[in-house]
Amino acid sequence: MKQADFPEAVTTLIAGLKHLPGIGPRSAERIAVWLLQNPKADPLALAESLVTAKQSIQPCARCGFFATADGCGLCDDPRRDDQQICVVEQATDVLPLERSGAFRGRYHCLGGKLSPLDRVSPEDLRIPPLLRRIEAGDGDIEVILALGSDVEGEATANYLAEILRGRNCSVTRIAQGLPAGGGLEHADALTLTRALQGRRSF
Amino acid sequence: MKQADFPEAVTTLIAGLKHLPGIGPRSAERIAVWLLQNPKADPLALAESLVTAKQSIQPCARCGFFATADGCGLCDDPRRDDQQICVVEQATDVLPLERSGAFRGRYHCLGGKLSPLDRVSPEDLRIPPLLRRIEAGDGDIEVILALGSDVEGEATANYLAEILRGRNCSVTRIAQGLPAGGGLEHADALTLTRALQGRRSF
Repeated sequence: MKQADFPEAVTTLIAGLKHLPGIGPRSAERIAVWLLQNPKADPLALAESLVTAKQSIQPCARCGFFATADGCGLCDDPRRDDQQICVVEQATDVLPLERSGAFRGRYHCLGGKLSPLDRVSPEDLRIPPLLRRIEAGDGDIEVILALGSDVEGEATANYLAEILRGRNCSVTRIAQGLPAGGGLEHADALTLTRALQGRRSF
Repeated sequence: MKQADFPEAVTTLIAGLKHLPGIGPRSAERIAVWLLQNPKADPLALAESLVTAKQSIQPCARCGFFATADGCGLCDDPRRDDQQICVVEQATDVLPLERSGAFRGRYHCLGGKLSPLDRVSPEDLRIPPLLRRIEAGDGDIEVILALGSDVEGEATANYLAEILRGRNCSVTRIAQGLPAGGGLEHADALTLTRALQGRRSF
């Protein structure tokens, strides 16, 4: 007797969901069942939003953020400071920085971080467009590296600092230290080391 | 100056993804970026598989598994044993049991488990169709409860055993004990208690 299996349409859906980052085989099955059997699920609306987003959004050729046919909300805003370019890993990193309200310059999304284990090398990052932006600027540009403080973020920051040396810009990076609201008893040794190394006169 | 935000199509997609079970706001953003910017992503194919699955699949009115216009692969198979009905929580629980090759009867998917905290009460489960199946049978049916061994699974099993008492069926439940390949040093106290309680002569 043949083992029972999902109908093909369900198997195809599960395979598609399994491809998404962070979704394993079990989660994909669970999501597929929920989509098909939960009264609150609306798979057709989700399908439509996928099609709409795919058809109307492309990465901005300049900064790498999401652009529509109307252009890029970041690059086209005349009130932003052209002399500051904040380099982030992903387009999603822009929003937390925007919410902080502490930065009013331009952004540049690399589209990843250096990671030999995941086979991400400098050629896979949007570094040439960054160099072109700096060349095209009128000098005096500050490139602010706002990359993660994990190993890959550190490696990417070091690599960028190296190739930006001697170019038409200064390079800074965001501070590492105690997070807001965090007590010393919860901070790990590396965070405290960096907080001490980055101390400033009061 | 207005804070930069995602274009509306991206926000809509993120909102749709955030609804899926087990997907939080951060995962939804990460998946949306991946879908829109990774060359390996195919959001249009995913959208199509959602539409196809939604339009071609519905729960089998009898057993609750996935059925197509061609019927239900479980209920329509004439070689399965009608005298055994294995009760599971979700349609996804059928496949692991099928892969084990140890069961060749019929299935009944409840569509959930009793959980007062999640407001799932007996009326939300597919219990009346189960009772109808037992009534319609020719007696001598074994109802095998194959529910999870968490608190909700236990509660559901106890509830079902109670309402099935005196009906035209016997009720059994799958064994709880040491998992295959598991050493005693990794087993928790409750597992060992149940393994001891369920001991059988050798």
